[in-house]
Amino acid sequence: MSKSKKPKTAQLGILGGGQLALMLASAAVRLGLRPVVFSDSALSPAASVFAGSIIGSMHDAQALNNFISKVDVVIFENEFVDCDVLKEAASSFDVKFFPGLQAIQLVQDKLQQKELLQKLDIRTSDFLALNLENAINEELQRVVDEFGPCVLKWSKLGYDGKGVFFLEDSIDGLSRAKSFCKKAIALGSEVYAERFVAFARELAVIGVFSTTGELRFYPVVVSEQENGICSRVFGPARSFGLSEPNEKRVQEYVRRIAKSLNLVGAFGVEFFETSDGNILVNEIAPRVHNSGHYTQDACRIDQFENHIRAVLGYPLGCTDAARPFAMMNILGPDHGEGQLTSNLIPIPSASVHLHWYGKAAITPRRKLGHLNANFERADELQTTLAQLERVRENWVQSLKE
Amino acid sequence: MSKSKKPKTAQLGILGGGQLALMLASAAVRLGLRPVVFSDSALSPAASVFAGSIIGSMHDAQALNNFISKVDVVIFENEFVDCDVLKEAASSFDVKFFPGLQAIQLVQDKLQQKELLQKLDIRTSDFLALNLENAINEELQRVVDEFGPCVLKWSKLGYDGKGVFFLEDSIDGLSRAKSFCKKAIALGSEVYAERFVAFARELAVIGVFSTTGELRFYPVVVSEQENGICSRVFGPARSFGLSEPNEKRVQEYVRRIAKSLNLVGAFGVEFFETSDGNILVNEIAPRVHNSGHYTQDACRIDQFENHIRAVLGYPLGCTDAARPFAMMNILGPDHGEGQLTSNLIPIPSASVHLHWYGKAAITPRRKLGHLNANFERADELQTTLAQLERVRENWVQSLKE
Repeated sequence: MSKSKKPKTAQLGILGGGQLALMLASAAVRLGLRPVVFSDSALSPAASVFAGSIIGSMHDAQALNNFISKVDVVIFENEFVDCDVLKEAASSFDVKFFPGLQAIQLVQDKLQQKELLQKLDIRTSDFLALNLENAINEELQRVVDEFGPCVLKWSKLGYDGKGVFFLEDSIDGLSRAKSFCKKAIALGSEVYAERFVAFARELAVIGVFSTTGELRFYPVVVSEQENGICSRVFGPARSFGLSEPNEKRVQEYVRRIAKSLNLVGAFGVEFFETSDGNILVNEIAPRVHNSGHYTQDACRIDQFENHIRAVLGYPLGCTDAARPFAMMNILGPDHGEGQLTSNLIPIPSASVHLHWYGKAAITPRRKLGHLNANFERADELQTTLAQLERVRENWVQSLKE
Repeated sequence: MSKSKKPKTAQLGILGGGQLALMLASAAVRLGLRPVVFSDSALSPAASVFAGSIIGSMHDAQALNNFISKVDVVIFENEFVDCDVLKEAASSFDVKFFPGLQAIQLVQDKLQQKELLQKLDIRTSDFLALNLENAINEELQRVVDEFGPCVLKWSKLGYDGKGVFFLEDSIDGLSRAKSFCKKAIALGSEVYAERFVAFARELAVIGVFSTTGELRFYPVVVSEQENGICSRVFGPARSFGLSEPNEKRVQEYVRRIAKSLNLVGAFGVEFFETSDGNILVNEIAPRVHNSGHYTQDACRIDQFENHIRAVLGYPLGCTDAARPFAMMNILGPDHGEGQLTSNLIPIPSASVHLHWYGKAAITPRRKLGHLNANFERADELQTTLAQLERVRENWVQSLKE
């Protein structure tokens, strides 16, 4: 047995320390890897678990260089990274980013996302970019004239309901819209308006695209939001009214997006389904996604392991779900803030899977964990959701006691 | 919300750094815990992954005290621990061991195990303790006279084929048996002889016994050994010829053992099934067990998570397997020794689950990882095993290239 001839397995680096990094790193460990986590806090879900984590901000050049020097392949917990800083830090090392920084840079600008979708002939809601160098009042009036009441979005840095504003044609609405735009300017973001889509429901899908060119889809799911944050997911959507042509359309859209951006790894795409059966792309997340957490307990190989497989060029694992499934997020309650170092664990029933992120503190409306459940027949959805809801409620109650 | 009234979740300590510790700690992390690993090597599968691992030997009082002072509950990777040292170290701390040290101490002595089984009216193979203070030759002759060719076992420190000797009535056999006995004396172990059991196959089962008194069983499985090391597991045995009365008998035996020893956590019991349909207990492992690795991909909640749930008093998760399953260990090949730091990963097909322990070196005949597969119908067993065998062979081949 020779030591030199074997290609060494790539040393994996994970940028980010939140729950997605935790679950990515756990999947990597299952495959025998020893990933290096880069996190801005030693108390983060991932850095508090994994040995050898490097603590620092993206703008701490020394910490970032230390990280980059230790790894061959970097994957991302999310797209909120400074690509210029990364390019600079990587310039003197032999390191690959998956997906590539160009794709990240494009996707992190939602306005560029919209333009890409147009270019790829993928249906999306109508949109108009505001020119923030003009008088904001006039720009707002222009979009109201065009769309009526509509949605304003930051092109950058929006997530979980942040960076989204529902614009109504009233003095109060316009004045709050103005400060929404000013905040965008301060953050270096642009603002664009989207025509309201009278959608019946939201769908989402996880695709996995490998460095080998292999492309797989997890089942399309129904995704429900509360105040802009993913609250519940269930599926497969085909068992809940999604037509076969629409499923094919979703997959065709995802294929075009993956190939155009070369989105290596698992990634999420969100859709609107209108009551007259149209499918519109809402947003692209170039990484593992909350709408794919159900894969941990419903699919043979979950989105996290397939992400690792894809970037390392291993054969992708099976993405089928044998039975219907539901996922429910557990968020910090509105009035549960504080320094509470929480090891409090909701106690699920025997048929519910708990994934708890071990965050150091409860923050209102931030994700603390999620619950997965599988069930046998589509008509058991409501019972299952009610069961998950009960677990969540019991936990919130336990905090108050 | 009050900070003081909430019972804090116990801080979990894991004694041992091997693959069982790795998988236990991973399950604990999934539940939001941040376990502390105590390992004799920083390169061990678990210590190389988990932040805050404490490195030291069981006889390094300072390291052990440091570990004990940080945790509320200690669980074991295996029973090869020095209970007296642990008792001493724990004496000034409020720490619980699960299972209790008394149970560990009894189980780690296989001769005491046999005596317990007799007491509990559980069928086991006939046995005779050797009196090592007498002339060894005469003692060996005594057991040969009683049993004919038979099996000699160390009462302590045997595992994976170590501490087992097949005694034939020949001069050469007796002389090697003598040195087997002398090695036992040097290790502080006793030796006993077991009558050969003409068994048709070996069975195993994982039971889970909670601090709350809840007791669950995973399916009974068929377990195959090669040279005393578990090689393959498949099941449920009920789909492969195990009768219902024998399944019930297995569960009844396990129940008696669990209650008698108060074996909190997941634990394995191994059986012989004779061709005339008798069930004999072979051995008890008071902890998660190789014969239960299939639960990771075949059952809703695996043995590792249920171990954690049991010791923390959470409701146990579902132990059913929806479909037939198979598990295959991957061992270091006989001629693959050396310093090779292996990140080499066998590339399984899309329907096979890989669990790779990330050991720092390949050691002949030591476990490096395992493969799990699920299948639809019992008659697909041979195809499935052949598929797993191919993955394993491909990997061994890749080492030679």
